[in-house]
Amino acid sequence: MPVSTTQALSDPRALSDLSHDDLVALHDEQTKAYDALVAKGLKLDLTRGKPSAAQLDLSNELLTLPGAAHYADASGVDCRNYGGLTGLLEIREIFAPLLNVPLDQLVAGDNASLAIMHDTLVFALLQGTVDSATPWVRDPVKFICPTPGYDRHFALCEQFGIEMLPVELGAHGPDLDAVRELLTDPAVKGMWIVPTYANPTGAVYTEEVTRALVEMPAAAPDFRLFWDNAYAVHHLTDHEVPAIDILGLAEAAGQPNRPFLFASTSKITFAGAGVAFFASSPANVAWYLQSLSKRSIGPDKVNHLRHAMHLKDADGVRALMRRHRDILAPKFAEVTSLLTERLGGYGVASWTSPEGGYFISLDVADGTATRVVALAKGAGIAMTGAGAAFPYGKDPRDRNIRIAPSFPAPADVTAAIEGLTICVLLAATEKLLAEA
Amino acid sequence: MPVSTTQALSDPRALSDLSHDDLVALHDEQTKAYDALVAKGLKLDLTRGKPSAAQLDLSNELLTLPGAAHYADASGVDCRNYGGLTGLLEIREIFAPLLNVPLDQLVAGDNASLAIMHDTLVFALLQGTVDSATPWVRDPVKFICPTPGYDRHFALCEQFGIEMLPVELGAHGPDLDAVRELLTDPAVKGMWIVPTYANPTGAVYTEEVTRALVEMPAAAPDFRLFWDNAYAVHHLTDHEVPAIDILGLAEAAGQPNRPFLFASTSKITFAGAGVAFFASSPANVAWYLQSLSKRSIGPDKVNHLRHAMHLKDADGVRALMRRHRDILAPKFAEVTSLLTERLGGYGVASWTSPEGGYFISLDVADGTATRVVALAKGAGIAMTGAGAAFPYGKDPRDRNIRIAPSFPAPADVTAAIEGLTICVLLAATEKLLAEA
Repeated sequence: MPVSTTQALSDPRALSDLSHDDLVALHDEQTKAYDALVAKGLKLDLTRGKPSAAQLDLSNELLTLPGAAHYADASGVDCRNYGGLTGLLEIREIFAPLLNVPLDQLVAGDNASLAIMHDTLVFALLQGTVDSATPWVRDPVKFICPTPGYDRHFALCEQFGIEMLPVELGAHGPDLDAVRELLTDPAVKGMWIVPTYANPTGAVYTEEVTRALVEMPAAAPDFRLFWDNAYAVHHLTDHEVPAIDILGLAEAAGQPNRPFLFASTSKITFAGAGVAFFASSPANVAWYLQSLSKRSIGPDKVNHLRHAMHLKDADGVRALMRRHRDILAPKFAEVTSLLTERLGGYGVASWTSPEGGYFISLDVADGTATRVVALAKGAGIAMTGAGAAFPYGKDPRDRNIRIAPSFPAPADVTAAIEGLTICVLLAATEKLLAEA
Repeated sequence: MPVSTTQALSDPRALSDLSHDDLVALHDEQTKAYDALVAKGLKLDLTRGKPSAAQLDLSNELLTLPGAAHYADASGVDCRNYGGLTGLLEIREIFAPLLNVPLDQLVAGDNASLAIMHDTLVFALLQGTVDSATPWVRDPVKFICPTPGYDRHFALCEQFGIEMLPVELGAHGPDLDAVRELLTDPAVKGMWIVPTYANPTGAVYTEEVTRALVEMPAAAPDFRLFWDNAYAVHHLTDHEVPAIDILGLAEAAGQPNRPFLFASTSKITFAGAGVAFFASSPANVAWYLQSLSKRSIGPDKVNHLRHAMHLKDADGVRALMRRHRDILAPKFAEVTSLLTERLGGYGVASWTSPEGGYFISLDVADGTATRVVALAKGAGIAMTGAGAAFPYGKDPRDRNIRIAPSFPAPADVTAAIEGLTICVLLAATEKLLAEA
């Protein structure tokens, strides 16, 4: 189970079972705890899924690579000069097996997969895809958005006026019936997917769900899955789920052009100075490169060379990711342990226990997420804004909070989550008392 | 004079003055010379403005920078991690004086200024500029294109269906009356400009011309100068023309938002692994960053740090550019010397003698450029396609050929230009005989 939830509504201490006096007493207790928390003057940041310095240190070799007078790739190309739009063969050879895509359908770019997502979207908007009759921008465009999801995906849609259609995301993928229904609308041109350890719930799409997504009919012949495999190798347990052969499944389903695949080394090597990837059908790759060739003469091949020397091969990446896990897994364990210890009995919160990725998704009492984040901020604990994981920043139940434990030091994770649990309980008791 | 032309129509050997028999004799002579050239089996490439390996070697320090455990910028930011959309202060401090722009109006990005041009154009098309009532894509868009010009600028326009309006480019800028007339059309939203050592003629815009361009009325309130200062510091003589204060002039003219400025280190450090820049008015920079923030969390700051350590300061860049000049200037001198020696007397060609940049623009007999490039190709000498410097690849007189002497070794430049002059004369005599 990649995602588990802890909910203890039947617990004897559940807030809903407390008498008014007990609720007042609990509220007073949490108010005092909160005042003490504020007095600590914390300054902690759990907003973004950033690697910690200890994780970045694992790739410090990149700071001196490729090394003096080392600038040629295996075929003798001078990586310092222009050219090579598809990226260095060496780096693509390392990531093709990890992403489970054919080598010649994999393109390596610059430092951000978000940028590649932006560009494919822009190319589709301004020129249309290989299956489009017209550029997307000529008509209203809608995207299916499994929620909670990745705020930057949604920000791209909002930027370009793309209407977002939320569907509920479960532990193994979205509500397929809802997706199937939405796909009867020819304006639905895309769907955001983080298939492995989804941001923020940790959901892992199964092969069965994936097959359904590439097989189901779509009114738009140019409907695309924006398959953002950002955490393909970012395991937190021994159970290292392999990347699904999305391109093969799509081809087998007669929809070879449906998936656009994205990935990067941002959370493998250096978050700001890594290598990003695009993969798709041969027709889509040709389409992407044709448009890309007008934008750039080629990516930073020296950085590709640097990365290829550092990572060596797919097993080199796997070994590196286990060292990341050694740093990350205890932080995730601390978060879920604290949440269980401090909130487990009250029946006001549930959270995920992801087996990979960068986030824990916390659901607090309905209607209190905004208040919890504000309380945390008041105590010097910066959390991602409430609603950030929903289209237009609007969580219909105002209950979801994304926890990003990777960046702070372990002691800071502990302090932040301890503080956060006080805010969760305080907001919940406030709400119940106000309703009483 | 940044641009000079050599034409010798009055020379006694001018082809137009030759008798038919003399013309036949010259044609026979060039045919034999061409056959001998083909027999040599050359394999030379003068197609693109690529730095040579010797030039790239000047920045080999970048291959080991920033150095072990060196990853913080001057303010202590960890350059390995996400963030810092405007780019590292250190690298912007080096280039602000060189580009003659205020530091806080300069943004440093990834490796390609072409990519920044693409993105500004895309943002304007899909969202409009700060002065636009609607996104550009809603209506037909036209760009003014001084010609001959840079083929990749024109390719961007073609990609997005932007109609290109050529105007003649002189030694100090375009035909201003023609530009003024075109600007009465509200569909004219942009104009491509390479202000310093323009690609391919070497034209250098004067302050007077620049002032006219920022002052003249434009029917479109959101008309933009795409000011691509690609060769701002790429001098070939002691006369190092300073960058014009385009942003200051535009502000003084009451048109602060008119210029978008672009530049890069592609021909300063590593062509494929450098740093690109964007500069404009405060309002335009805010606009650019707002859209960019949806595309990327930040540029490769480690590469910024690497470059700042290598280049040190503006004088460091100037010193490096003099070392480039030591390598480049003899190649340019060899080209113009050979053109003068082999073609000077025939009255069939003229060419520029640029004081900077990467190209020499050669005009051959009208209607023969395509034939000359084909002949050269047949002899193993790859030239940029005839017409490449014109919108839609169409040179109305089929006479312009762009010579890029930077990449080949000096001996290869000599061999290529010697061969090219044979092709020029052969094509010219063929044409005259066909017309006779």
